[in-house]
Amino acid sequence: MQLGRLNHVGIAVPDMETALAHWRDVMGARCVHEPIVIERAGLLIRFVDTPADGSMHGTQVELLQPLREDSTVSEFLRANPAGGQHHLCFEVPDIHAAHAWFTQAGKRVLGEPRPGAHGHPIFFVHGDDMGGVLTEILETPKEPQP
Amino acid sequence: MQLGRLNHVGIAVPDMETALAHWRDVMGARCVHEPIVIERAGLLIRFVDTPADGSMHGTQVELLQPLREDSTVSEFLRANPAGGQHHLCFEVPDIHAAHAWFTQAGKRVLGEPRPGAHGHPIFFVHGDDMGGVLTEILETPKEPQP
Repeated sequence: MQLGRLNHVGIAVPDMETALAHWRDVMGARCVHEPIVIERAGLLIRFVDTPADGSMHGTQVELLQPLREDSTVSEFLRANPAGGQHHLCFEVPDIHAAHAWFTQAGKRVLGEPRPGAHGHPIFFVHGDDMGGVLTEILETPKEPQP
Repeated sequence: MQLGRLNHVGIAVPDMETALAHWRDVMGARCVHEPIVIERAGLLIRFVDTPADGSMHGTQVELLQPLREDSTVSEFLRANPAGGQHHLCFEVPDIHAAHAWFTQAGKRVLGEPRPGAHGHPIFFVHGDDMGGVLTEILETPKEPQP
């Protein structure tokens, strides 16, 4: 496998409005995308663009707020009530080849490929097998992301 | 202030050789830069390039291994022995203007601007004031980074 683009950094936040105020007013973000709700994961998501030289957008910041107590970031937020860096998401050209790669490498792959926040296929690899970094793998979107 | 480029994601690692094996052999990194030692911080650092469409390089991964027990990542590693995401580093055009900005915003700025891993001026802002994200601010290098 060849390391792909760092698509986004996932950041768990206890409250989306507080987080958006921080990223807009303190960090100076100019482009925050529309809210996305992922029912299965119990998450409210907002993507924040960061600039990049020579390309449409750089690595995004993905803000993740739980919508219920058993959301996929709730355990993280119980350990880190202020929020914090939750995962890194790297792109691959072929999600099934990547799934086989990490499985063969003996990593705990968390489920089969499934649609992620933008509908493109993703899966996660357990942080304990990845140097403490919960890692999301995303098949590079064929069209530019919204 | 306007949000700048996400220069790198800092990842604390207990052992650099193990971390490099992971990033090269499992994640497929093709370009790992030469070791940097920051005596003041007690750190051994390796930068890993990630690709970006249309630009020379995307956001880098910065691997940080402590060289002594009072390094700047030692406390983090005591809480997270396997390692993990330690900080995000964003670029600004003017380090002194940014320092004044975060100070005026009531954020705990950790010291005055000083040379970072590549010799360009940086400072950190306390994670507890930044939604749990320890944030490094870097003046955009005038020449491409090595």
